Amino acid sequence: MDYPNDRTTPGAPVRAGIPEHGRIPKYYAAKVRLAALIEELGEGEVLPAERELALRFEVSRETLRQALRELVLEGRLRRLGRGTVVAGPKLEQPLALASYTEGVRKQGRRPGRHLVGLERFPCPPVLAAELALNAGEPVWHMERVLLADDERVGLESTYVAVARVPRLDTDFEPDSSFYAYLHDRLGIGFGDADERLETVLATPREGLLIGTPGALPMLLIHRLSRDTRGRPLERVRTLFRGDRFSFTAHLGDASGRRASGQ
Amino acid sequence: MDYPNDRTTPGAPVRAGIPEHGRIPKYYAAKVRLAALIEELGEGEVLPAERELALRFEVSRETLRQALRELVLEGRLRRLGRGTVVAGPKLEQPLALASYTEGVRKQGRRPGRHLVGLERFPCPPVLAAELALNAGEPVWHMERVLLADDERVGLESTYVAVARVPRLDTDFEPDSSFYAYLHDRLGIGFGDADERLETVLATPREGLLIGTPGALPMLLIHRLSRDTRGRPLERVRTLFRGDRFSFTAHLGDASGRRASGQ
Repeated sequence: MDYPNDRTTPGAPVRAGIPEHGRIPKYYAAKVRLAALIEELGEGEVLPAERELALRFEVSRETLRQALRELVLEGRLRRLGRGTVVAGPKLEQPLALASYTEGVRKQGRRPGRHLVGLERFPCPPVLAAELALNAGEPVWHMERVLLADDERVGLESTYVAVARVPRLDTDFEPDSSFYAYLHDRLGIGFGDADERLETVLATPREGLLIGTPGALPMLLIHRLSRDTRGRPLERVRTLFRGDRFSFTAHLGDASGRRASGQ
Repeated sequence: MDYPNDRTTPGAPVRAGIPEHGRIPKYYAAKVRLAALIEELGEGEVLPAERELALRFEVSRETLRQALRELVLEGRLRRLGRGTVVAGPKLEQPLALASYTEGVRKQGRRPGRHLVGLERFPCPPVLAAELALNAGEPVWHMERVLLADDERVGLESTYVAVARVPRLDTDFEPDSSFYAYLHDRLGIGFGDADERLETVLATPREGLLIGTPGALPMLLIHRLSRDTRGRPLERVRTLFRGDRFSFTAHLGDASGRRASGQ
């Protein structure tokens, strides 16, 4: 499902560079040529120096840099030391109850997590309403950086009542799977979840923790999950690098819908 | 599920402005104060002039503009003529078989579409494989701007075999629902679909068609849908304004997964 940027592929924008008034911005013309070069070189190959590319495409260094910047933000190129290399395809993460660990493993990558912080605090009213708790009841906030093959790719905040997971601070290995801990140690299974996905910009702190430039578009997923009895269990806020992740969903009859809208 | 940017709300980044080294970038401090002002003012209200805000926050005009720019890209502020107003919440679009029309209507907005172009062309190999056609068979490409209350919010490209929808050019009103046309006129129902969602930057042409600045993060959905007999039906590429849309999904047992990963 990954398409190069030309007319013969359905995933690509058609005549993408040509606004209705017919003029193609210079940076975009350079971007189209860079995209062709990226296809030619293939994953992991190093791009020629900026000076050389600017000469070849007959654009200024500043114009070339704008094109490079967009391709980096979109995850087609990556900065590596002082060079720029062709990036691999985005990780495809299924929108499913058990997502991160399983999704990353399925793509032959090694999932990991680094604990940023674990604290307990009195549940504020908004969170209490979501988790069906009383305001002021103790809740955990666990924040972890998500890794794929040791690369930092996301940041996750989990909120869960202390009453549900009393020994999270002493009993749980924060580098491991929280869902596996809930299931294997506490006998808690997940029944269903509601997710909302949007694109946001990383804050300076988030950028620092994930190791991204500040203005990188991120995919933010809000999740509220319930146990197999339908009781709210956890509220999660997960930020994924927009240049490294895409999300997949299979839509079927289960949704109870048929050819009505659109 | 929409949270202001402070410590007491679980949807918001915790200590978002404070990188580990303890320094808060000036533009981000201004952004946090602007976010508070946005909350105070409420939807549709006009922000004070840049000069006044820069004085009030004790930052340069350029620093203030960086904060405003991010809030515009994130959809919390909107440019309106020469002023800047507080934006309403993002539209929440369900990830479901019948999405656009139904999703927009459910939120009390009026869906619409403007035809950009309809053409038939010989099916290229990649698309042929996806739609289970022979390369070279005629396919339609229909491109439409998506509207909500007359506001341009997205751009959709639909690819479908001419053999399935022979009179698309004469028989179908392009401002109306394609899915309703398929169902009501041709008796074709949707069975299931695969979707992939990612964030990309609008191309100049797309920005012009949707009326957005070039670097605005967009949500791009690739869809391949099948009819009720499981035959591939259409390939769709839909671009939604990242500042105007979020997507929701309900994850249940139907996915066949239980508390294994993460």
